[in-house]
Formats: sequence, structure tokens, C-alpha cells
Amino acid sequence: MDKKRIDNIINNTKGKKLKSELVLDTGFLKIIKEDYLLPDNRVITKQRISKNNDKSAAIVVTRTVDDKYLIVFQNRVDNIVSAEFPSGYIENNEDPIKGALREVKEETGYVTKDAIILDTCMSNIGTEHSKLYLIYAYNAKKECDQELDKDEYINYELFTFEELKELVDNNYIQATSNKLAFYHLKELLKK
Amino acid sequence: MDKKRIDNIINNTKGKKLKSELVLDTGFLKIIKEDYLLPDNRVITKQRISKNNDKSAAIVVTRTVDDKYLIVFQNRVDNIVSAEFPSGYIENNEDPIKGALREVKEETGYVTKDAIILDTCMSNIGTEHSKLYLIYAYNAKKECDQELDKDEYINYELFTFEELKELVDNNYIQATSNKLAFYHLKELLKK
Repeated sequence: MDKKRIDNIINNTKGKKLKSELVLDTGFLKIIKEDYLLPDNRVITKQRISKNNDKSAAIVVTRTVDDKYLIVFQNRVDNIVSAEFPSGYIENNEDPIKGALREVKEETGYVTKDAIILDTCMSNIGTEHSKLYLIYAYNAKKECDQELDKDEYINYELFTFEELKELVDNNYIQATSNKLAFYHLKELLKK
Repeated sequence: MDKKRIDNIINNTKGKKLKSELVLDTGFLKIIKEDYLLPDNRVITKQRISKNNDKSAAIVVTRTVDDKYLIVFQNRVDNIVSAEFPSGYIENNEDPIKGALREVKEETGYVTKDAIILDTCMSNIGTEHSKLYLIYAYNAKKECDQELDKDEYINYELFTFEELKELVDNNYIQATSNKLAFYHLKELLKK
């Protein structure tokens, strides 16, 4: 790939952030207005959302010692219950893999030390600046009870890879990030 | 797959939305507080973000008649320029494919009538309730100039599939949704 060509396009597109202003701060959510100078000298305003101080998050495809996958079910906004891989925020200065494995333990009581990063991406590039790690954890064993946050209610279940595929195909697993994690798993298992 | 088993877990997890309250409305963004009764009788509060009145959006993998792919470059929040497939909001009552092809035309001046839906997913299931269509448009031809919104500044370029792969692998294409669209393209081309 001609990286110079790409970097040129990026430089020709890049504006300059002139100022940013905090519009709302609920603690968990911040709304920030940002003024940009575009390359054609127009000034535009963007609205940025900052969730949990832009902390990175992790989605963790978790495979148990007996070759099942952990899926959590929880209430999401607007009364939706979704099937998802365990996930959560990485604390500041926390290693992404350590944070991911901590979340799996908290949400399911399954523990392992074996994990790799499948991909790093941006969750919602139009309005947020937050990183998402897709992680594959394996050899997980049930070792303790769930340790949920005070506002969490999570049920988990174990599924085979074939069942996982059906959960994706039937849109029980419906989050963009979770589907991407599933495709990475699929490619990994092919190797 | 045992759908009854899944539906049981979902019903056992589902709470009940008690009330919702609008906290902020900037026009484009709304912040809504929602109170939920959980199955264990606790009441919790969730913060929901509504972008553009929860309009659905489309990401459009667009292949030209001469077998190249359209990639747009634009300023995103926090001074990031990202390489992305053309994308945009579907207007109310608009057919998703029609909306997707309209966005491609506006952002690049390329036109086609040939397109299929690759996948339908939820962009940001923790805090939003908005649908994302991943669309594959093909046989696109340059027919007119860009028709950008007044606050948009978009450069586009054409890439081969191999270059597209390198853009993904090198995280020039870094949005979760765009990466998922690329994996769908890859599976489609294998068939």
C-alpha cells in the first residue's frame, strides 16, 4: 500500500480544532461542542459524546476449557435484552487483557490467564473518540460467583460454536461490535 | 438452535421501563434518563443517547464498474481523519437501499441501482437504540459532482480490494462498523 498517498489525503482533509465547550456533564456522559476550521476555511461545529471519560472498552469472546462460549444477557436501553459476549470498560492505566479478563470474571465467575487481542477499533467514530479492544480468552474455568456492579443484572449461558453462529445469523447477537468479534473468531478458528 | 431456551433467558432477564425523562436536547443529540425495574425488583437508572432521533444509518461498501472500492475521508470528532465507506442516515420512511445509494451519490457522485443488504445490526447497544444497515452496492459509475451538506468536507478515493484489505489491516479503516462491513464483503467475494 502507498502510505504516502493515504497520508496525503488525510492531511488534505484534516481541519483544525479551534475550541471545545462542555455542554452537559451527567457524570457518565458528557456532551462537548467542538469548533473546527476546515481546509476550505469554513468553520463548523461538531457535537462529541464522551462516555465514561472516553475510557476504552473490551468485548471478550470467551471459550471455556470444555469448548463452549460464554454469552451474557442483560437489559440494554429502550427495553432490549441482547445476547452479547462479556464486555466492559478498561480502567485507566489497566492492561486491556487484564481488564478484559476482570470483566469476564465479574460478569460470569469464569477465570483464565490465556487471552490475545484480536483487533483494536473505534466504536463510534462519528461522535465519539473511544477505543474498543476485541479480545479472545480461552481455557476459561468457572471459579467463583458473579460480582456485578450495583446496577447490573446479567444472566449468562454457554453455547457451542455452531450455536454461536446461529445466535449471530438470527440476530440474537445484534451489536455491531459483537458481530465483528464473531467474524474474528471464525477466522481464528480456520487457522 | 433451541429458540425457546434463548427466549426463556431473555424473558428472565427483561426488566420493565418505568419512565423516561429528557435531560438534554441539542437538536441532533438527546440524552434521556430511563428508570427500569429489574427482575429482582431493584430499580436502576440508565442513560440513553438518541442521535438524530434514532434514525437508522447505512454503511455502503461501494464497488465501481471497474472493480474499485470507494473510500471517503472526512474530519471526525477530536481531530481524527478516518478512512471509511460512504455512509449516512436513512430518512424516515425511506427504503434503506435507496437511502444508502443517495448517500453514496451525495458523498462521491457515483451512482448505481444495484445493491443488497449484507447485514442489519445495532450500532451501540449499551447506550443507543439505532439500527445500522451494512449495504453492498455494485456497478457504480461516476455521474455527477458531490452534493455535500453544508457542514461536510469529504475527499474520496478509489482502492482495489487488496488495498482495502491493507487499509483495514493498518487501521486506516478503524471504525467497528466499517471493519464488520469489510468482513461481510470478504465472505461475499468468496462465494
